[in-house]
Amino acid sequence: MRVVDLIVRKRDGEELAPEEIDFLVRGFSTGEIPDYQFSALLMAIVLKGMSARETARLTSAMIQSGDVMNMDGVPGPLVDKHSTGGVGDKISLVLAPLAAACGLRVPMMSGRSLGHTGGTLDKLESIPGYRTDLSPERFRAALQSIGFAMIGQSESVVPADRRMYALRDVTGTVESIPLITASIMSKKFAEGAQALVMDVKTGSGAFMKDLGQARLLARSLVATGAGLGRRVAAMITDMDQPLGRAVGNFLEVRECIECLQGSGPPEEVDLTVQQAGRMLWLGGVRGDPAAGEALARERLNDGSAWERFLRNVEFQGGDTQVLLHPEKGPRAAVVKPVTAGAAGFVRRIDAYKTGIASVILGAGRSRKEDTVLAGVGITLTRTQGDEVTHGDELCQVHGEDEAKVAEACRLMEDAYQIAGQKIMPTPRLLEEITHA
Amino acid sequence: MRVVDLIVRKRDGEELAPEEIDFLVRGFSTGEIPDYQFSALLMAIVLKGMSARETARLTSAMIQSGDVMNMDGVPGPLVDKHSTGGVGDKISLVLAPLAAACGLRVPMMSGRSLGHTGGTLDKLESIPGYRTDLSPERFRAALQSIGFAMIGQSESVVPADRRMYALRDVTGTVESIPLITASIMSKKFAEGAQALVMDVKTGSGAFMKDLGQARLLARSLVATGAGLGRRVAAMITDMDQPLGRAVGNFLEVRECIECLQGSGPPEEVDLTVQQAGRMLWLGGVRGDPAAGEALARERLNDGSAWERFLRNVEFQGGDTQVLLHPEKGPRAAVVKPVTAGAAGFVRRIDAYKTGIASVILGAGRSRKEDTVLAGVGITLTRTQGDEVTHGDELCQVHGEDEAKVAEACRLMEDAYQIAGQKIMPTPRLLEEITHA
Repeated sequence: MRVVDLIVRKRDGEELAPEEIDFLVRGFSTGEIPDYQFSALLMAIVLKGMSARETARLTSAMIQSGDVMNMDGVPGPLVDKHSTGGVGDKISLVLAPLAAACGLRVPMMSGRSLGHTGGTLDKLESIPGYRTDLSPERFRAALQSIGFAMIGQSESVVPADRRMYALRDVTGTVESIPLITASIMSKKFAEGAQALVMDVKTGSGAFMKDLGQARLLARSLVATGAGLGRRVAAMITDMDQPLGRAVGNFLEVRECIECLQGSGPPEEVDLTVQQAGRMLWLGGVRGDPAAGEALARERLNDGSAWERFLRNVEFQGGDTQVLLHPEKGPRAAVVKPVTAGAAGFVRRIDAYKTGIASVILGAGRSRKEDTVLAGVGITLTRTQGDEVTHGDELCQVHGEDEAKVAEACRLMEDAYQIAGQKIMPTPRLLEEITHA
Repeated sequence: MRVVDLIVRKRDGEELAPEEIDFLVRGFSTGEIPDYQFSALLMAIVLKGMSARETARLTSAMIQSGDVMNMDGVPGPLVDKHSTGGVGDKISLVLAPLAAACGLRVPMMSGRSLGHTGGTLDKLESIPGYRTDLSPERFRAALQSIGFAMIGQSESVVPADRRMYALRDVTGTVESIPLITASIMSKKFAEGAQALVMDVKTGSGAFMKDLGQARLLARSLVATGAGLGRRVAAMITDMDQPLGRAVGNFLEVRECIECLQGSGPPEEVDLTVQQAGRMLWLGGVRGDPAAGEALARERLNDGSAWERFLRNVEFQGGDTQVLLHPEKGPRAAVVKPVTAGAAGFVRRIDAYKTGIASVILGAGRSRKEDTVLAGVGITLTRTQGDEVTHGDELCQVHGEDEAKVAEACRLMEDAYQIAGQKIMPTPRLLEEITHA
């Protein structure tokens, strides 16, 4: 097998055979295939695509490149959820304890903030003491006793993805449905999940700005799952506006506590319950998503999800006192309001601009090396559809630095769009793909 | 300027600006842009193309990467010819002295055999003593005194092309009209040519098997020439069958001597005269191609082209005695005939199979490191349209090794196609593109 012949075949739009894909991924992982050949292949994949069969094989070849979590002895359906990322998307922190409280095991490996979007690990680590670097043994122990754990991806899991992503990042080959699919799916299935709910975000605050692209990705994820013999359901949800009312690490944790205690923003709670319903359905705990939702709603209301969350924070070394008394948690030094310049109704809050504002404040990273601040961010006082008069507070900007707060305020003024007439809120759940 | 942004723009089918192309070629030449980024760019170019403007700029950026021949003081129109390569294509050896005899200066830099095709340098070096590594000073001196010289490309001329080709070769990015155009044109214009006749071959023995592709390349070459302010005319000629009757280095030199002495195969002489006519027209020696052809025919018939060739061989260190007495030149140890298995008419001799047979015999290279044999090859006793009876000799196979001769004979049996009825010969000149 010659690498160049395989590149040419992909360049000419042909389908590669399973053993050819294995050969390429293995060769790249070991360094036998040089980067300059692999990047040409990646560009050919970006421009010529991959079939569902090829994508599934690429995913399993990538899984083979490293360690696979051993879940022997962990009982019950192992079901996970993955979001393609957004602004204010804190669902995982509520969903994982909720699904665990309903009888699932959730082996959640998450990422850090990237670009304008937040990251689950950064949010968790804003809880003083919380550790996301559990050993595989502790991770398994947490799954057994509490039903979920939330960690970062270790170096030894899917190393091919790390290597491949670093190359894609500098060669203009990030934007590819099959490559994105394989990257997500390989990590999720290497961590031990048997089924997966995918939250594919679309809109200004998402990586897939366009609904058509989001739909293609959702279909690809579900089809690839089927190709690997795993159940995957995809929800396409709106990320044109931030989710909930808080953006920024500990500000979001506080909102999660509200959600777990029954007082979170309704649209956020609803979306969390919908995702939990689908996890329960995929895991076989309930026969359909609606029945799953009913169970999830019950476990949220009876406090058992909240109780799981507290146990998890304790297990992972976090200070539960700041959960019980969030006002004692991290706070920003400077808090400034942004007020309405005109009367009317909030038409839309631009998610991308909000995300950028929160990065400026220090909640996210411009570069990989940046450290994030726990207390900074934005709280939305008014959201879509709310009526405002001139001078009303639209949001609060929380920062450590006056200049940055001023800059974020300007961005938020711009992010808020005010309409003359009444506005109907946009639904969050746009489409679902549940079968390949 | 970030390399990845330029890759993304090309990937998305956008046109790159002149200074962006300069930046990319310069960065690649100096090694500042790593191969893995450049190969992704190359694949994007293969799949998304380049405009005529981009291709012209790529060509000039590549020329800038190295030395440009200084032709100051060399009088007269400097006009060259380039063929995309074929089987039995020995035209350059006759054309260069002929054009020089008509008043042009021909600064010819040629290549070596590659794949199934022959190379001008290998043919010339089959003349004992002939040197193709003249210094720039000797090259200029030959141009001044004899009107032409034939050398290999030095390391310092268009180094970007060498580097780029090495990368293209292993990344499946050879097949690209703009990249092929820039590779050819940069070398030709760096050697000092002011105008250029392109012989774009098509058919089984050519790199462009398909007429449509050949036409695209021909148009691209002419348009790129125009973009660089140089006159380029392209002839699309048939390479579905070998050109002339001899294939193999010294066998071809012998046929060239016949052409220069007035007894060469008519179709080969005609094509040479046609190319010379266009060179004379582009160089302004005659007002149109037909008048150029008339002058070329005259200089071929009056022996002045032959005289120039002898002077060149002497200048470049070759033994002119083997030209005057070719029977004293290199010969193969084993010569075997291939005979007709049936009566009929020669419908076609497959150029690709003939080329492969000659490589097997040692006339060409399977790998770059291979050395070529001077005396081996194939002489075609019968060509297209000839009537044959069972057992008639079709061709002779000349080799050094019985087993290889036997293998080449089998290939040649297969290369000859015999028809039941009379066959009209295919024309060689298929199309011409003379204006952008």
